Amino acid sequence: MKLYERLADEIEAAVRRGVFTPGERIASVRQASQQHGVSIKTVLHAYALLESRGILETRPQSGYFVRAKPDHRAAGRKRDGEAGAGAIAVAVASEVDVSRLVLLTLRSIRAHDAVPFGSPYPDTEPFPWRRINQYANAIARRHASWNLIDDLPPGNPELIRQIARRYAENGVPVDPGEIVITVGATEAINLSLQAVAKPGDTVAVESPTFYAMLHAIERLGMRAIEVPTHPADGIDIDALAQIVGEGKIAACMVMPNFQNPLGFQMPDARKRQLVDLLSMHDIPVIENDVYQELHFGDARPSTLKNYDTKGIVLHCASFSKSLTASHRIGWAMPGRFRAQVEKLKFLNTLTTPSVPQVAVADYLRHDGFDRHLRRVRKLYRQQARIMIAMVERFFPPGTRTSAPQGGYVLWVELPERVDSMLLYRAALSERITVGPGYMFSTRNAFAHYIRLNYSYPWTPQREAALQRLGQLVGELDARAKGART
Amino acid sequence: MKLYERLADEIEAAVRRGVFTPGERIASVRQASQQHGVSIKTVLHAYALLESRGILETRPQSGYFVRAKPDHRAAGRKRDGEAGAGAIAVAVASEVDVSRLVLLTLRSIRAHDAVPFGSPYPDTEPFPWRRINQYANAIARRHASWNLIDDLPPGNPELIRQIARRYAENGVPVDPGEIVITVGATEAINLSLQAVAKPGDTVAVESPTFYAMLHAIERLGMRAIEVPTHPADGIDIDALAQIVGEGKIAACMVMPNFQNPLGFQMPDARKRQLVDLLSMHDIPVIENDVYQELHFGDARPSTLKNYDTKGIVLHCASFSKSLTASHRIGWAMPGRFRAQVEKLKFLNTLTTPSVPQVAVADYLRHDGFDRHLRRVRKLYRQQARIMIAMVERFFPPGTRTSAPQGGYVLWVELPERVDSMLLYRAALSERITVGPGYMFSTRNAFAHYIRLNYSYPWTPQREAALQRLGQLVGELDARAKGART
Repeated sequence: MKLYERLADEIEAAVRRGVFTPGERIASVRQASQQHGVSIKTVLHAYALLESRGILETRPQSGYFVRAKPDHRAAGRKRDGEAGAGAIAVAVASEVDVSRLVLLTLRSIRAHDAVPFGSPYPDTEPFPWRRINQYANAIARRHASWNLIDDLPPGNPELIRQIARRYAENGVPVDPGEIVITVGATEAINLSLQAVAKPGDTVAVESPTFYAMLHAIERLGMRAIEVPTHPADGIDIDALAQIVGEGKIAACMVMPNFQNPLGFQMPDARKRQLVDLLSMHDIPVIENDVYQELHFGDARPSTLKNYDTKGIVLHCASFSKSLTASHRIGWAMPGRFRAQVEKLKFLNTLTTPSVPQVAVADYLRHDGFDRHLRRVRKLYRQQARIMIAMVERFFPPGTRTSAPQGGYVLWVELPERVDSMLLYRAALSERITVGPGYMFSTRNAFAHYIRLNYSYPWTPQREAALQRLGQLVGELDARAKGART
Repeated sequence: MKLYERLADEIEAAVRRGVFTPGERIASVRQASQQHGVSIKTVLHAYALLESRGILETRPQSGYFVRAKPDHRAAGRKRDGEAGAGAIAVAVASEVDVSRLVLLTLRSIRAHDAVPFGSPYPDTEPFPWRRINQYANAIARRHASWNLIDDLPPGNPELIRQIARRYAENGVPVDPGEIVITVGATEAINLSLQAVAKPGDTVAVESPTFYAMLHAIERLGMRAIEVPTHPADGIDIDALAQIVGEGKIAACMVMPNFQNPLGFQMPDARKRQLVDLLSMHDIPVIENDVYQELHFGDARPSTLKNYDTKGIVLHCASFSKSLTASHRIGWAMPGRFRAQVEKLKFLNTLTTPSVPQVAVADYLRHDGFDRHLRRVRKLYRQQARIMIAMVERFFPPGTRTSAPQGGYVLWVELPERVDSMLLYRAALSERITVGPGYMFSTRNAFAHYIRLNYSYPWTPQREAALQRLGQLVGELDARAKGART
């Protein structure tokens, strides 16, 4: 164990014993260096580690402080395989700041020679990017396409028609007039949240939850309340009902299909229950459905929209996971909040670039999106199986994996002693990236979990990288065990 | 005068006399219809007109209310030609909702056969869109360009270098590491404002001010305080100093070069004074410099950045007015707020599409941006002269025009009795669009002003349209005169 880790553990233990209280300012780096007789660099490393563990936080020009809620590792955590068994253990509402960590992780995957297990993005090689570019080029040759007037919010009418058509073909009732085109689902989620809640409001999310939802909450000055989430059934409706009954929340954000990171497909009956509960209390729900097209089963799953009679569902999606990541074409179907979302879109980025909108519309109208999707779904299903088998083979006992029903990410629970930030750093130094579990909660509830991307084809190099990752997990586990005995 | 106008005038007069007090709910449409013995449609028209005049406001599911500050027509207004003459008359801070009107106006210019005097966008015909598309197509053929990792915030490194190079060549000191690429200047302005102020804060703006600044303030739940602005010198620094001295404002937003709508170029000495004043009080200033390349004089004007020693200037700009409107490439140089703006960019829209970033970078590196700009500047300078001459010829006495020193919009003061919303509607029914003065203030301070776009080439059709516009102004003036005598 390195010196800075030992120092970090000491400070963490002191916080947990109540030596330092939440909100209290701790010694400056210089003071701590003198106090502990270690170098400034060691203190900086220790404090950074404690920040990543959620024990400390920095405030600009003020120094380091003990976080208001330093320890909720046990609260509301749900392990894969543990069914909802009456778990009403609900996290307290907390202000959110996981975005720094996510930015860090995204930067790590920029290295082209690194193994992209940590990437949140799909491999773009199987995407029909040549074909879409042919359309884009044909459109861009016409001067009319350079006028941004036509495709101002809500967006290009033909693209809106094509999106509505796909939903209709899959049994989701959609009025084209409800759709607003956005810059990716990220913008759709931001605008939807702003349309239904205000700064200071509390928003219920799944736990673990996809970090972009936490980001939206953070940026708008709201608070997140994390609700236990079952690895197969989705958000715990009884636990949510309790919170809702207490009148605590202004809105709810969920990912019912192929949730990132858990990969579940919420059963239809539970989707209906969820919408019924929220409708009864008139609480809007933001449905992030970006993986909708990447199902492993035969049929596209239903959405919350299918059960929405009161217009409380703000459905957000994009083509970034299924067709083209870099064109940044997303959309919102905001139910009865449609006018607000359209106005906010206009205020936020004015308009979504026109040529990509028309190019994607042309592709959808003329090409084989379904054929492409069948191919990608089969690929992801196969690669999910391979990665699960390889994790079982290479990772130490105590490791458990999710059972994704769609999408392209695997959620892996490591032996409890293994800190995913330490694994992240150790792996990165060997050019292997992973997504640390800290990104998926504001409460460090998933400190020993990682997310792995299986969209990339399986190669001997990637197999060796996964094997090495398994070894690193074993080493970290042994080291943590040694340090505590 | 139509029946609904007469009804609107009656209600407005009652509000001004204090019969209805600010914040009070007025009769429902049905009640008013019975009370006044007119049709529901007439009441709806009258109420809509009163909304556009800022007398009434609607609240969802609650009806119509008298606005908190219904009358500031006289306060802080500055006419073209009236120098700053000690005008410390400063508007009270007001919550902002001009975006509805702007959306309405933007929709009006979608009609392709309409005369685009009301458009905020430049004619895209002189832009090198064919050339940029060649680059885009060449880039998009390479698979690597479809990976969005490389150009995540802050953005494509080559584009950032090219932008920094242009500033350096024009005497603006820029560290490439400060630049963050955004989805147009709209996003840059939004992110910059969010980085320096919080909901409830008050932000100083010019009066008249470019409405996108008001939108940003509105969307973030802040309040605008409108500062008198001289048609040639820019924001009244004495008036601003007074507000700043009272500790009222969290930030300031200005457009020192070719302000929209006034068209002035703030003199260098005054730019320096402005930055000095704000530096002394440590108040960040957001500089919207989207027209920077469209100067009529020989040299590119200085920016507030030239005088900024403390990092308080958040400079925002884009290529949308000078090179390509539809690629939506903008940027921020946020001074010491750079880290916050980069993080907010990531949270807001994740990334700006990659291919357009690289295509614009390629164009800047290999092509004749300066040659293109020289041509466009000459065109706009000529067309400004023509439009001023034509307004003088066709509009009734009492009309005055601005003297733009760059950009492509003209600010026109109509005879005082002429309501620009009535003109807007009358003109639109004849397929002529104008920008009503109401868009440029939250206080209806510019009810008898309009903005005209002169980026489109002068044609007999456009000349006839301007002539007809002048006739309509005359008719509205005569009608208003008749109604009041």
